[in-house]
Amino acid sequence: MSTTPRGANTRASDNVREERLWQRHMEMAKLGATAKGGVNRQALSAEDAAARGLLGSWAAARGYEVFTDPIGNLFVKRPGTDPDARPVVSGSHLDSQPTGGRFDGTYGVLAAFEVLEALDDAGIATKRPVMAVAWTNEEGNRFQPGCMGSGAFVGAYEIGTLLDGKDPKGKTVREAFGEVLAAAPARLEPRLGFPIDSYIEAHIEQGPILENTGNDIGVVTLIQGMRRFYVDVHGEEAHSGTTPLRLRKDALKSAASMVLALEKVMDDPTDTVRFTVGRFEIYPGSPSTVPSKVHFLIDLRHPDPATLKRLGDAILPTCEAEAARRGCTVEVTEYTTVAPVPFGAETVARVRDATAALGYRHIDMISGAGHDAMHIAKVAPAGMIFVPCWKGVSHNETEDATPRDLANGTRVLADTLAALANR
Amino acid sequence: MSTTPRGANTRASDNVREERLWQRHMEMAKLGATAKGGVNRQALSAEDAAARGLLGSWAAARGYEVFTDPIGNLFVKRPGTDPDARPVVSGSHLDSQPTGGRFDGTYGVLAAFEVLEALDDAGIATKRPVMAVAWTNEEGNRFQPGCMGSGAFVGAYEIGTLLDGKDPKGKTVREAFGEVLAAAPARLEPRLGFPIDSYIEAHIEQGPILENTGNDIGVVTLIQGMRRFYVDVHGEEAHSGTTPLRLRKDALKSAASMVLALEKVMDDPTDTVRFTVGRFEIYPGSPSTVPSKVHFLIDLRHPDPATLKRLGDAILPTCEAEAARRGCTVEVTEYTTVAPVPFGAETVARVRDATAALGYRHIDMISGAGHDAMHIAKVAPAGMIFVPCWKGVSHNETEDATPRDLANGTRVLADTLAALANR
Repeated sequence: MSTTPRGANTRASDNVREERLWQRHMEMAKLGATAKGGVNRQALSAEDAAARGLLGSWAAARGYEVFTDPIGNLFVKRPGTDPDARPVVSGSHLDSQPTGGRFDGTYGVLAAFEVLEALDDAGIATKRPVMAVAWTNEEGNRFQPGCMGSGAFVGAYEIGTLLDGKDPKGKTVREAFGEVLAAAPARLEPRLGFPIDSYIEAHIEQGPILENTGNDIGVVTLIQGMRRFYVDVHGEEAHSGTTPLRLRKDALKSAASMVLALEKVMDDPTDTVRFTVGRFEIYPGSPSTVPSKVHFLIDLRHPDPATLKRLGDAILPTCEAEAARRGCTVEVTEYTTVAPVPFGAETVARVRDATAALGYRHIDMISGAGHDAMHIAKVAPAGMIFVPCWKGVSHNETEDATPRDLANGTRVLADTLAALANR
Repeated sequence: MSTTPRGANTRASDNVREERLWQRHMEMAKLGATAKGGVNRQALSAEDAAARGLLGSWAAARGYEVFTDPIGNLFVKRPGTDPDARPVVSGSHLDSQPTGGRFDGTYGVLAAFEVLEALDDAGIATKRPVMAVAWTNEEGNRFQPGCMGSGAFVGAYEIGTLLDGKDPKGKTVREAFGEVLAAAPARLEPRLGFPIDSYIEAHIEQGPILENTGNDIGVVTLIQGMRRFYVDVHGEEAHSGTTPLRLRKDALKSAASMVLALEKVMDDPTDTVRFTVGRFEIYPGSPSTVPSKVHFLIDLRHPDPATLKRLGDAILPTCEAEAARRGCTVEVTEYTTVAPVPFGAETVARVRDATAALGYRHIDMISGAGHDAMHIAKVAPAGMIFVPCWKGVSHNETEDATPRDLANGTRVLADTLAALANR
């Protein structure tokens, strides 16, 4: 590790190496590789341990300090010149969905690590330490909740409760973390959470907007809010052959009417509203029986808290009106509420400035999905950098991104982190 | 058994005994009784054998001949005065749905048997034999197809194939029938199918029309036709949070639009059309994923063949138009087609005349559900008599009917059968 400046004009981004970054993605992709070209590397699994071990080996080759905190978040530290300065942190997660892709999460971790190396290779000393992090269990598939590591780091969850959590086979987070530490040893830092200066997370977009608009970089200003609802429609079972339509209380037709009436309520010329019915179950499910019950789930997202409130609050009266038209009844239950998370003005501006200075085509955008940055934004100024991914496909084995796009985002990250660490 | 007339003015219906008829329903209801007051008496089960044995014991007490044919249809014969005359036949089935009621099928068998006794008690000799029949496996739940016995009787199915059919546990119809014969012995008539003069089936309506219109008797003119379709809607999986609505190919919203567009196509001021979507499945079923596929079933019924053809043929273009509006594709597959079955003009008129003569409030109506009469109508003039059932509920343990309504229908049946047997 060198901290000797090579010249005033050398930018960290000039030392981001596209080929190295890509090869590391390909090496990581071998750990939990699936037959269809994706990744199954669930949180705190043997594959996750192997990924942590691989990152640790690259860090060791550079002489960086590596440590894990009590929930398994893995940190790689490049020191700063001021021993009292808070670190600038960047990263994402190494765990994947069971049929996940090679870039979701992994990119943010490898981009951050690439920046540490680029700073070294550029000979740039920073006042503040720069740290790469792999947060534990972002996906929330094997263990709940998702964003477990970043949530624990900011005190959103109680550590003991998290460690007692079990996977579907009954193994606890505590046991799984113990196995990870045995397989991929790292110094265990007993303290959970420490003051940080700022946080930037690079991520594939997981949506089609950058690709469709021909932009290289998304400057993320906010993670949109989400409200999720169960809707239970109650009608009356009846014989399909004998019961006149006007005497029916058909829960299926009622629920279909609700979906389309809600679609009208959610209509938005700016196409910002995200309104999804992703689960829809009917009972009893026989072709000769008029359905008596439908259970469906609504996922509603929007960046503006007032709009999210207004649209979410319109669900019950809209469903009730449709139920009444058909003699049915309906219950609406909100089961998840996440407020929008705006990022800090300065961190967002630094990302935007770095992107502009590099000459990349860019737009400001919101994050449609949740990310670890959502939690970290509670304790430090945060920001995110999005790069395009093929057709917006994610949480899928066909997830793809180009070496060039990944490198572009990493260059933006490098100059942003360097600026934050030296301001 | 007496065949001596007691007087020219004695009608068979005068000798229908409401209390006896009701008590026999209650005795039958004990065989396979469920905790919720219904019946689980599946075809060729031990409970079905017990019901057959009970009917046989009542027949033996009257000295009637009892025999079963090779598919297990159970006949009780009251002889006529002309040894060459074809029999007039009436009946239904003793098997039930797994959570069935006390009257569906059973009523038609017990009403027919009550008529045999009423003819005796009235001292009415008939030229033609009058036979009560319990057809095998009308429900089609344990073994397929439904209306197995009546279908085999008219040659709609090949007997060997039917006997080889298995229930979900792997037991064949042949084995189950052997067990029934062992438990409830009856003379096995090796011939399947014999010429019959005419056929009348009494049944609970299984719909709400008689109750809602305050009628005692439904004179059934026809069993409506049915067309069943699979509809497969194909869209594209996408992330609920990140994918703008206008870029989605949402199979769920597309399918909901199809259901409501079809509802408009099927709209009928006379409320004769029966249009039901009773199964509706979506994939992958995650709240955070835009559904890529929906599979739903349409059950369409109508008494008029031309209307049934026109409406059924409109399903594909209607679904295709809705699919195209949302960038989805759709396949429509017809998997069941049953033409409407009109009953004979004379048999229907005889039922109507008998009802009018008894002074019952009555309407002509169609049968919304399929019945054994559907098959028998292919080989002989047929008709059906409907009586009200509580709220139209059937295929349900709460199925109910009043002793008075059951007796009214049986009186109509008695005078109809007597007239047919002596014409």
